[in-house]
Amino acid sequence: MKAEILAVGTELLMGQIANTNAQYISSRLPDVGVGVYYHDVVGDNPERLKQALALAISRSDVIILTGGLGPTQDDLTKETVSAAVDRKLVLDQETYNNIKQFFQKREKPMTQNNMKQAYLPEGSLVIRNKNGTAPGCIIEQDGKVIIMLPGPPSEMKPMFDETVMPYFAAKSEFRLESRFLNIFGIGESAVEDALIDLIASQTNPTIAPYAKDGEVALRITARYPKHGNDEDLITPVENEIRNRLGQSVYSNDNRSLVEVASKLLLESGMTLALAESCTGGLLASKLTDIPGISAVFDRSIVTYSNRSKVEELGVSQQTLDLYGAVSEQTAREMAEGIRKASNTDIGISITGIAGPAGATAEKPVGLVYTALSDCNGTDVKRLDLWGNRNRIRYTACLHVFDILRRYLLARGKE
Amino acid sequence: MKAEILAVGTELLMGQIANTNAQYISSRLPDVGVGVYYHDVVGDNPERLKQALALAISRSDVIILTGGLGPTQDDLTKETVSAAVDRKLVLDQETYNNIKQFFQKREKPMTQNNMKQAYLPEGSLVIRNKNGTAPGCIIEQDGKVIIMLPGPPSEMKPMFDETVMPYFAAKSEFRLESRFLNIFGIGESAVEDALIDLIASQTNPTIAPYAKDGEVALRITARYPKHGNDEDLITPVENEIRNRLGQSVYSNDNRSLVEVASKLLLESGMTLALAESCTGGLLASKLTDIPGISAVFDRSIVTYSNRSKVEELGVSQQTLDLYGAVSEQTAREMAEGIRKASNTDIGISITGIAGPAGATAEKPVGLVYTALSDCNGTDVKRLDLWGNRNRIRYTACLHVFDILRRYLLARGKE
Repeated sequence: MKAEILAVGTELLMGQIANTNAQYISSRLPDVGVGVYYHDVVGDNPERLKQALALAISRSDVIILTGGLGPTQDDLTKETVSAAVDRKLVLDQETYNNIKQFFQKREKPMTQNNMKQAYLPEGSLVIRNKNGTAPGCIIEQDGKVIIMLPGPPSEMKPMFDETVMPYFAAKSEFRLESRFLNIFGIGESAVEDALIDLIASQTNPTIAPYAKDGEVALRITARYPKHGNDEDLITPVENEIRNRLGQSVYSNDNRSLVEVASKLLLESGMTLALAESCTGGLLASKLTDIPGISAVFDRSIVTYSNRSKVEELGVSQQTLDLYGAVSEQTAREMAEGIRKASNTDIGISITGIAGPAGATAEKPVGLVYTALSDCNGTDVKRLDLWGNRNRIRYTACLHVFDILRRYLLARGKE
Repeated sequence: MKAEILAVGTELLMGQIANTNAQYISSRLPDVGVGVYYHDVVGDNPERLKQALALAISRSDVIILTGGLGPTQDDLTKETVSAAVDRKLVLDQETYNNIKQFFQKREKPMTQNNMKQAYLPEGSLVIRNKNGTAPGCIIEQDGKVIIMLPGPPSEMKPMFDETVMPYFAAKSEFRLESRFLNIFGIGESAVEDALIDLIASQTNPTIAPYAKDGEVALRITARYPKHGNDEDLITPVENEIRNRLGQSVYSNDNRSLVEVASKLLLESGMTLALAESCTGGLLASKLTDIPGISAVFDRSIVTYSNRSKVEELGVSQQTLDLYGAVSEQTAREMAEGIRKASNTDIGISITGIAGPAGATAEKPVGLVYTALSDCNGTDVKRLDLWGNRNRIRYTACLHVFDILRRYLLARGKE
């Protein structure tokens, strides 16, 4: 089935918002066997909407309209669609009651305008809206499916997920299932190289690599017959990929690197302190995004000046003079210093040149050292990162969380 | 002039990215007298692109195409447009040289594919691309303007700003100028209340308020005749708004609160250290986003545990026991402690409950204390913030930068 997504709203044509509804719907529909061929946006203008709708009906099987279902004069999607399919707008009693309740709860008077939302094209399937007052609906006519959904994403998404997706799933001859493997520590082309035979030969499931900022993701998508055949097609492929890529695969459930590392840390019960220079607090900030991390995360010292490295972490002035603040030696002393100062199980340090200034002939922008210290000693790793200041700081954090993750995995196996 | 934005790219129809190019272009075009009436998206399919282009040409004066200018077989925007306007693709020597240089610099072989990017419709105005290999172009034919721009926003935006905007500005009968006033410390409705007579009575310039996350912005837009009349219409209105809102207006040049506060700090030459609890390093991370801040920013200590507050900042155990970690007293001792430990001119602390856990009957999620300590004493401020963990941490940072900004402004006046 060929689908078209027609968004109605002057705010899109003014550039006040991006059409994220079209993106969301487009990313989901292929899973129920519906391909998206067109997106269109028109303003709150009856004549242009009418023409756009006529064109969509002429060239697509499924037309999903978003927006223009509100209570004001501007909102004319339902009126235009009703006229196009030649159906009357009739009162939907349940919607009427819901709207009345909505206003009673908020102790606000219900204006006549709001009643408008309770009228839907005759014979349409109502899509209930738990997060707002405007319902959506599905109309089947002459082999075409026309669906109307409200514009606010917080209302549109649950209605789409809970009603529209099951509607198409029931029509589809098959069902698609996807799983994302998140990968860190190998580039996209190296991942492709390692899996090229699998990617080329697999037809069900299919494997598609995606580059994310500083990371790679693989999408494994299997097509199952609608009924019967419950054989799991995805897991054997995931296992083969894991055999080849090893611990570089860090999650198969959309969890981020910091979430995975934090969970391992919480499970280990080990305590952690950080000593940050080039990341300037970003590492601690990402770690403390995780609710509950205070059980194991003790402190981070952002030592931006050399003086603070000496005073807070006990880095020796001689080391700074001899090797500089961005060096293997300083990273080592920072990690050992923070572990000692905080009396935690693990101390991690990071020092580098995020740019744009600060580089020398020997030490380019992107040169970063990170060290992990525990009761058995200290490991230092050199990173050569690229990009602007923000990207370097961001990818430096990813590397630290990956180092911590691999350390905790290895320790768990002992 | 009626404009239409036609995006070409299967990645949009797959929902991998949102059409932010259309949003960006739509938000800018009204400033040069061009209104946007339609957005469309089609995939990398020659027949559907051809039809969409024909429709766009039939109903719009200006058609801006984004995407499909790359070197691969899939990229067919130029070919399709050339056929539609009946022009040959001809070699653009300067683009050819640029592409050759691009590959020489990177010591990569240039494939025949890449040559394709150097061909442009005959007689078109070339739009140079400083951030990639594919140029854009402007074609004028039969009273219509057709513009092609590459898909990656990092290439498209500068080309649009530097070539397309001036192109339309030169055609426009008037010119629009906008200035944004950024405001912190008053809510959107309070801003409207204070300015309601101005907003209602002004027609040139117009004043429009926008709510941003935790902030408010005002856009002042003046319409000038293209030639002559150089009277500044915006500044008198800005001055009247500043009279009414005072120091709450923190910038008129798109600089963020942290940029404004950092600039004042650098100008003052005063040194700063931070003691963070609930923000977990976010404050330091935002401050160290600013290149050059190391001249005045010494360190931040993220004291996530109570123990670290005692050890690193000298907060007394008695204070923590009596008043708790989230209290006026603890905030005060943290700020004084970090100033003493770092020997800086200013010490700032922040401690609060970011949620979702940690709240009590007396101390709800969103309760935050922040203190600023200098040689004259310490001021503590209580903040009552709302929203989820991320929003509370984010708006807490805005408040701290605003407190620092107002402190430095007051000091500058002494």
